[in-house]
Amino acid sequence: MSGIFISFEGPDGAGKTTALEKLLPLLKERTDKEVVLSREPGGSIIAEKIRKIILDIHDEEMDPRTEALLYAAARRQHLVDAVLPALEEGKVMLSDRFVDSSIAYQGGGRQIGTKEVGEINDFAIDGHLPDLTVYFDVTPDVGLSRIRKDHEGAMDRLEKEALSFHQRVYDSYMEIVKNNPDRIKTVDAAQPVEKVVDDTLDVIIKRFPDVFNGGK
Amino acid sequence: MSGIFISFEGPDGAGKTTALEKLLPLLKERTDKEVVLSREPGGSIIAEKIRKIILDIHDEEMDPRTEALLYAAARRQHLVDAVLPALEEGKVMLSDRFVDSSIAYQGGGRQIGTKEVGEINDFAIDGHLPDLTVYFDVTPDVGLSRIRKDHEGAMDRLEKEALSFHQRVYDSYMEIVKNNPDRIKTVDAAQPVEKVVDDTLDVIIKRFPDVFNGGK
Repeated sequence: MSGIFISFEGPDGAGKTTALEKLLPLLKERTDKEVVLSREPGGSIIAEKIRKIILDIHDEEMDPRTEALLYAAARRQHLVDAVLPALEEGKVMLSDRFVDSSIAYQGGGRQIGTKEVGEINDFAIDGHLPDLTVYFDVTPDVGLSRIRKDHEGAMDRLEKEALSFHQRVYDSYMEIVKNNPDRIKTVDAAQPVEKVVDDTLDVIIKRFPDVFNGGK
Repeated sequence: MSGIFISFEGPDGAGKTTALEKLLPLLKERTDKEVVLSREPGGSIIAEKIRKIILDIHDEEMDPRTEALLYAAARRQHLVDAVLPALEEGKVMLSDRFVDSSIAYQGGGRQIGTKEVGEINDFAIDGHLPDLTVYFDVTPDVGLSRIRKDHEGAMDRLEKEALSFHQRVYDSYMEIVKNNPDRIKTVDAAQPVEKVVDDTLDVIIKRFPDVFNGGK
């Protein structure tokens, strides 16, 4: 595979989505490779169908283990339908969330166990970890206050959870970051978005100096 | 839990569904407990939605690992919504297929590996194995000839697979039966359906003599 696979992780309210939109054109102008941004599980009909079941606000009695298995299923299909073909074509694939999200949210947040959720995700990805993961670090209080301001009244099922849930998610992310120092690099996401984008760009250029040129 | 959980397993064309319909009234007249028959993933709105994705004949590019994760997800929700509540109420719960089907079909048939598929199903059922599993034994050639006669032109995605797939499913079932002599009892399903029902009844009465009386 000649492509590059980069995932972006962080708690709710870390500003990943906004930062990724701003990052995309900056990366494109610094490389000859095609750069694509895929929201998991975008780019796959089956994965989108699964996502619809997961995020249906009416499915309130969904068991946490069911949820974890569905996320792993959608991830698998997204990987096969979107990520791997892009990497085979030599593209730079940016993914908004990947396995670490499941481990932090389902394993830690919903208290199923990070080891258990890690195992079903190992089954799902079958060795295809990102080449680089950028972790957008923001504490739960800052993250949640941003969410409330952003889209009050339109929170999805996961975002409706209490602060204690988000604290467990945060603690799990800290653990994952600590255990994967080579793959995961941290960016301070409490900063203004322009600075977050700038720091993310630096991390990516530094990690792949032959692919992205450093001019700004 | 005061209930009893019995699963029924076997290759396509083993005649499970027909035999279970005939078995149900015979079991009911032999016990004071309520006897319920639940097709997996029946009895759960979420599980039915997942099942719909799995069996959609248009989803032909579904990855085998996605399929295995979806079956495990549907199983989990069926267990939580239907099986465990029935067992807590002291009922006899009969399930048409359970974990062994996934291990045989996805692990063996689709060649993902019986150990790997066993692990994601362990995650899904979290220790809740059936008290008894009746295995309906029929060789792939007999099973497939029955399917073709039964509903030609209306085969679902799984049934459309080639004979080699069904041979692998059969071999995996043989392995599972061998490795679980206490839980799984085999009935010769190549016999006429009345004899299959009779043998199954004997197996259940022998295993739970305090629950079912032996009168015929």
